[in-house]
Amino acid sequence: MAENKSWVLMVTAQTPTNIAVIKYWGKRDESLILPINDSISVTLDPSHLCTTTTVAVSPDFTHDRMWLNGKEISLSGGRYQNCLREIRSRASDVEDEKKGIKIAKRDWENLHLHIASYNNFPTAAGLASSAAGFACLVYSLAKLMNVKEDNSHLSAIARQGSGSACRSLYGGFVKWIMGKDDNGNDSIAVQLVDEKHWDELVILIAVVSSRQKETSSTSGMRETVETSPLVLHRAKEVVPKRVVEMEEAVKSRNFPAFARLTCSDSNQFHAVCLDTSPPIFYMNDTSHRIISCVEKWNRSEGTPQVAYTFDAGPNAVLIARNRKVAALLLQRLLFHFPPQSGADLNSYIVGDKSVLMDAGIQDLKDVEALPPPPEIKDNVPTRKFKGDVSYFICTRPGRGPVLLTEESQALLNPETGLPK
Amino acid sequence: MAENKSWVLMVTAQTPTNIAVIKYWGKRDESLILPINDSISVTLDPSHLCTTTTVAVSPDFTHDRMWLNGKEISLSGGRYQNCLREIRSRASDVEDEKKGIKIAKRDWENLHLHIASYNNFPTAAGLASSAAGFACLVYSLAKLMNVKEDNSHLSAIARQGSGSACRSLYGGFVKWIMGKDDNGNDSIAVQLVDEKHWDELVILIAVVSSRQKETSSTSGMRETVETSPLVLHRAKEVVPKRVVEMEEAVKSRNFPAFARLTCSDSNQFHAVCLDTSPPIFYMNDTSHRIISCVEKWNRSEGTPQVAYTFDAGPNAVLIARNRKVAALLLQRLLFHFPPQSGADLNSYIVGDKSVLMDAGIQDLKDVEALPPPPEIKDNVPTRKFKGDVSYFICTRPGRGPVLLTEESQALLNPETGLPK
Repeated sequence: MAENKSWVLMVTAQTPTNIAVIKYWGKRDESLILPINDSISVTLDPSHLCTTTTVAVSPDFTHDRMWLNGKEISLSGGRYQNCLREIRSRASDVEDEKKGIKIAKRDWENLHLHIASYNNFPTAAGLASSAAGFACLVYSLAKLMNVKEDNSHLSAIARQGSGSACRSLYGGFVKWIMGKDDNGNDSIAVQLVDEKHWDELVILIAVVSSRQKETSSTSGMRETVETSPLVLHRAKEVVPKRVVEMEEAVKSRNFPAFARLTCSDSNQFHAVCLDTSPPIFYMNDTSHRIISCVEKWNRSEGTPQVAYTFDAGPNAVLIARNRKVAALLLQRLLFHFPPQSGADLNSYIVGDKSVLMDAGIQDLKDVEALPPPPEIKDNVPTRKFKGDVSYFICTRPGRGPVLLTEESQALLNPETGLPK
Repeated sequence: MAENKSWVLMVTAQTPTNIAVIKYWGKRDESLILPINDSISVTLDPSHLCTTTTVAVSPDFTHDRMWLNGKEISLSGGRYQNCLREIRSRASDVEDEKKGIKIAKRDWENLHLHIASYNNFPTAAGLASSAAGFACLVYSLAKLMNVKEDNSHLSAIARQGSGSACRSLYGGFVKWIMGKDDNGNDSIAVQLVDEKHWDELVILIAVVSSRQKETSSTSGMRETVETSPLVLHRAKEVVPKRVVEMEEAVKSRNFPAFARLTCSDSNQFHAVCLDTSPPIFYMNDTSHRIISCVEKWNRSEGTPQVAYTFDAGPNAVLIARNRKVAALLLQRLLFHFPPQSGADLNSYIVGDKSVLMDAGIQDLKDVEALPPPPEIKDNVPTRKFKGDVSYFICTRPGRGPVLLTEESQALLNPETGLPK
């Protein structure tokens, strides 16, 4: 270690969130977080949805501490402890010649960490913040501690923080292989294709207002595995075939197959939630209306234009086959779900605003002037559901974790190791 | 036949509706209406929900005609034709000495029928009006034509009008045995226990306001069988065990087992609807809230007090273990779902009003004064959902079909054979 003077060594990383298109629901091992089936996800562009984490080490730190979105939180939970233990056990020698710091492999056991993490989207909105969060924690610690393992090995550590976190260690499309080993070493994420492979896809997320208290996914999936007579049939008979078909659809950029599989698998995940005792409802009437809107349009076009998928909450993630379709989709969504009167369009549509421009919408008057989509023209009167969507995020498939090397991007003070 | 003078021979019958507690969803033969699994239902008291049908024959009638709720409808549909053909083929000699009428077995082929049918509840409310309707049609025609077959054989004919109609030929609890024969002759209903066996049960139906156009059950179940990867597993692996357990629960009046099976099977039916492509949603947010209210209460009591079940629509059918529980249930429902301001309580709670008296509610002020149920007291603030329920029907398990012999109860004029 460096001698005689105080020092702080820091690493900052940014990690994306991801959305499953073949769903993970159900564990075969609660503690190691081993799933009952493979799953496949698309990584979302970190420009719009990501976690940034700075990890720091210093001989002056007296215990491990963490701040999430500026607020100190406890690290005593088993999931944090598992990740910290697994990463520490893989630490290597670290040398920073410029700062004159040398940390030997064995020193890591006695050094304490400061961790600051920040989501660029609302944590409570049900947008898989824990996936990005644990992936970023593990990735940044691995860089700080000079862990030699590749991202797939790191994914098996992130998995122990939050199952879906393992899929956030890669960009593009990612498969989480369930594995067979009892120790979980083969339950890892692998990249199917990178984010450039299918870059015409556009993703719109409708953040749906919800007044219901939702079942956490941890307890929800436990209750499903314990009580649903359908979930094991899904995991053993249905999902394996879908995973093969989805890999093929993604690799060949076959949008109709991709959409069919994505929608069916989302619906089946919610079906096994409903088959749970007591039943779990994540989708609400707004979610149902968004599905009906997409299904009607897809049917009228003869071939799918948009896929939908819903996680453990009412938010819709809509994947449009290209930019042109995304603009038409946004028109339809804004027609059915206009913002509250007097709302600011700029905060109603966030992320990649160019989709809004493509849709020819510049202000609220343009929203009000939207005609009913042709596929519903016969079904007058068309109801509008003002206020049922909180806001929309426009994004796209994105890259995996990256290091942020600018000191200005760090969340901890380089002198004190405390939040800036 | 009677000679030289005009005559009309009539029969009037009343038939109950029924609600499945183990659900029928999916046919193995569309034309004969043969199901993919057994189902079990409870017959509802015809005082509150029934169909009354008058059937008449006269040599003066020139063709078969039918009036439903006062409006003439076509009998050309395959389902009506199948029922009429099957019943005619089983007709026997009929003699009415008083009127001097003699109809020989062979005459029935050339005689035409007039049929008038009336539901004592809104047809559009999604309360299985076709079940009571076809059961009543077949039952009344069988009496008119002196068909010798018993109700189980008649059920196989009613089944060809509407699957669930076969279960309306008995009171109490009824099992529809799916059968094995290709001709459907063994796909019949049998009574498990009569309506006196478990007469402390009280049934509350919440007729839920819906603005969505619903998928008909005929096309819905066809789409489920064609597209759901889960429905056959349900039919072959899950339902057979549940049917055995449900029979045992009904026979031994084991309410906890009955409630567990009823709720789980309703939820699983809606799960396979959701697993259909495109997905079918019959329950809405109001349905979900009613389920949550019942689940919370059942949990807080340690043992189920109320079972819920939902058919192909958002209406809740709630089965309370006894009258005392029914009064407590009605208090809870009225707390969460009060009538619109200025509504008439008398038309908001229909059927057996004594439940309202037991609940200590005489007017809207009593509804407004209802305290939050103790099991939700901690979760303040409690939202109210005024107007989300259209009205409640209080009823109980009831008897099977009966003949109405008073001429005043007939729906057709005894001289003309036309609607009164």
